[in-house]
Formats: sequence, C-alpha cells, structure tokens
Amino acid sequence: MAAEAGVVFVGNKPVSSYVLAAVTQFSSGSKKVILKARGRAISRAVDAAELVRRFLGEKVKYGNITIGSERVGEPGKERQVSTIEIELVKTE
Amino acid sequence: MAAEAGVVFVGNKPVSSYVLAAVTQFSSGSKKVILKARGRAISRAVDAAELVRRFLGEKVKYGNITIGSERVGEPGKERQVSTIEIELVKTE
Repeated sequence: MAAEAGVVFVGNKPVSSYVLAAVTQFSSGSKKVILKARGRAISRAVDAAELVRRFLGEKVKYGNITIGSERVGEPGKERQVSTIEIELVKTE
Repeated sequence: MAAEAGVVFVGNKPVSSYVLAAVTQFSSGSKKVILKARGRAISRAVDAAELVRRFLGEKVKYGNITIGSERVGEPGKERQVSTIEIELVKTE
C-alpha cells in the first residue's frame, strides 16, 4: 500500500529520473508528491516539477512551494545552502 | 518616488548583486520586491532571496512563490525553460 505523500529528493541525475519517480509515486496511489532539492539542484527540481505538470496535465496542481536554508558540512566548515520543496497534488 | 513593487531579474552575476538590488529597492520605499529568474539562474534567485531574508530579518517575509515555464529561442528552435518568481514583502 502506497503512502499518501511521497517524497522525491532531486540531485544530480538527469531530470527525467525524477519525473519518472514522481509519476510512479502518483501511479501507485500517492495523493501528493513533494520534490525536495538544495543548492544547484533547485533549478532541476523546478524543471522536474514543470515536466510532471506537463505530463500529467489537469491531474495535478501545485501545492505549497517553500524555500529555506540548511546548514551542511562538517563542524567548523559549515555553510548554508538554499533549499526548495515543491508540492504536487492530485486534483481528483 | 519609488514604485510600490520592484522587480529584480536574477541572471549570471554574483548573487550579491541581486541581494544589493533587492535591499536597495526596499530602502527606497518598495513594499514588495519580486525576484524573477529562469533556467539555471533559479538556484541563484533562491540564494538571493534567502540572503535578503537573513539580511533584513523580521522586516521582510515571503509572499507568493510561483514556478512556471516560458518558451525561448528563435522560431523553429524554441524550447521551454522553467521560471520562478519569489515575492519578498515588507512586514511593516
């Protein structure tokens, strides 16, 4: 049984991997899929979200889109990276 | 007299340029500043927004964050690029 909300972490793979992951989660019953990314992968997450939207058309819409920061790196070498979370929600 | 809403187009310059542009618009009276970017510059727009937020602290908060696509390029060589618009709104 699929979870109600799925999460896809967007990294450095081709954008199609994340589109497929999100579409698969919707197909297996998720009502909501959240694309999460940080740093340079943020642009790719937006690309993936737009492609999912184009692929599934009226069946999904955007939910909340939030941006923020996270602290990464080893102690003493920490730095802030920006983050994004894009909710895609099934309309039916 | 400053406009009520300012727009900053985020491109390939260092992120500090856009932070400065946004902070300057707030200082000169704008109640709202919209950071707009497309393609790879989307990550930089998110970085700029987070830095403005850190710099101005409680004085600004996020308004609407929207993502979409635009068609770019010459006829016959058109392609879709993703876009983002990040609203920063003065809280006072």
